[in-house]
Amino acid sequence: MIGKRVYLAGPDVFLPDAAARAQALKQVCARYGLEGVSPLDPLPEPPAAWSGLAEPARIHRQNEAHILRCDALIANLTPFRGPSADVGTAFELGFMRALGRPVFGYATTALGFTARTLAALGAGITEHGDGWRDANGMALEKFGLFDNLMLDGGIAASGGALVTEDRPEAERWSDLTVFERCVRLAAERLRP
Amino acid sequence: MIGKRVYLAGPDVFLPDAAARAQALKQVCARYGLEGVSPLDPLPEPPAAWSGLAEPARIHRQNEAHILRCDALIANLTPFRGPSADVGTAFELGFMRALGRPVFGYATTALGFTARTLAALGAGITEHGDGWRDANGMALEKFGLFDNLMLDGGIAASGGALVTEDRPEAERWSDLTVFERCVRLAAERLRP
Repeated sequence: MIGKRVYLAGPDVFLPDAAARAQALKQVCARYGLEGVSPLDPLPEPPAAWSGLAEPARIHRQNEAHILRCDALIANLTPFRGPSADVGTAFELGFMRALGRPVFGYATTALGFTARTLAALGAGITEHGDGWRDANGMALEKFGLFDNLMLDGGIAASGGALVTEDRPEAERWSDLTVFERCVRLAAERLRP
Repeated sequence: MIGKRVYLAGPDVFLPDAAARAQALKQVCARYGLEGVSPLDPLPEPPAAWSGLAEPARIHRQNEAHILRCDALIANLTPFRGPSADVGTAFELGFMRALGRPVFGYATTALGFTARTLAALGAGITEHGDGWRDANGMALEKFGLFDNLMLDGGIAASGGALVTEDRPEAERWSDLTVFERCVRLAAERLRP
């Protein structure tokens, strides 16, 4: 039996052991009957026209092609170099959401978006009657969500799930337990 | 004549004068024969079922509905609270890209992604033979792009354009000149 295909979005591709991380994620997927597809995977038959593209453009096309060939997407939304998820991951989440397929998210911190933003911005935050504003006067979202409302909202509207849990700092990018909880939910959701 | 409809994605909605900013962006669009659609605009006929949704979920649904009703998207990719664009904007960019319609981006800084990331991370960056890694060992993209390759790549592949220009810090979120350059290109691209 061939399992449903799940695209594994996330900044994990930037890890020093990115290939090993991709393998570990795929093995978790396999235990739940799903086929994990990594952005690092070569495409079975890349269009000949892509050979003329610069490396980043080729990677972009490959990732979009992978997403189009998958049944669902699981995104690592662990905050990346700021209070929010990686923007490439957010792009891919939106891309799959527009295809009408279920999108899932997970993160190795459970701290909410507002608290993370307050912590990241530090000084320069001012309190207003209705919440907080940054040094540019720009409001902080205060909905009690995990990240920007388009991410939380897209996941919920798609029928997916968002799994977050505080893991030790040292395991922030290597932990598999939160991912596994997310995969379990995805497998249930994708069961024929 | 009714112009093509363009969704105006960006963290501009968080500005203290968000409504005035949306009006200003729409006026620029109108000068080029385009109808600018703001995330702040009410939807003509919101589904009755949405009345039961919490506010952020309703806003998310409304934004997706706006994007579905537009012919193109112009995203404010000015770095937001970190080295990259706002993740909600990135989600919307990916969403529209998956619909196969042209997506455009603009920013009031021309500094590249790698330089911005190096500046934002400061200490903790280490140099490797092939580039830089952050304190978690995660690689920095070094393709000479403006932001994560999915954003630059999605814009280019869609037939859109990315317009960036250094504007004074004080005008970073109020400038209209870079947006106007982007609108001009979008109008040419969308001309019937």
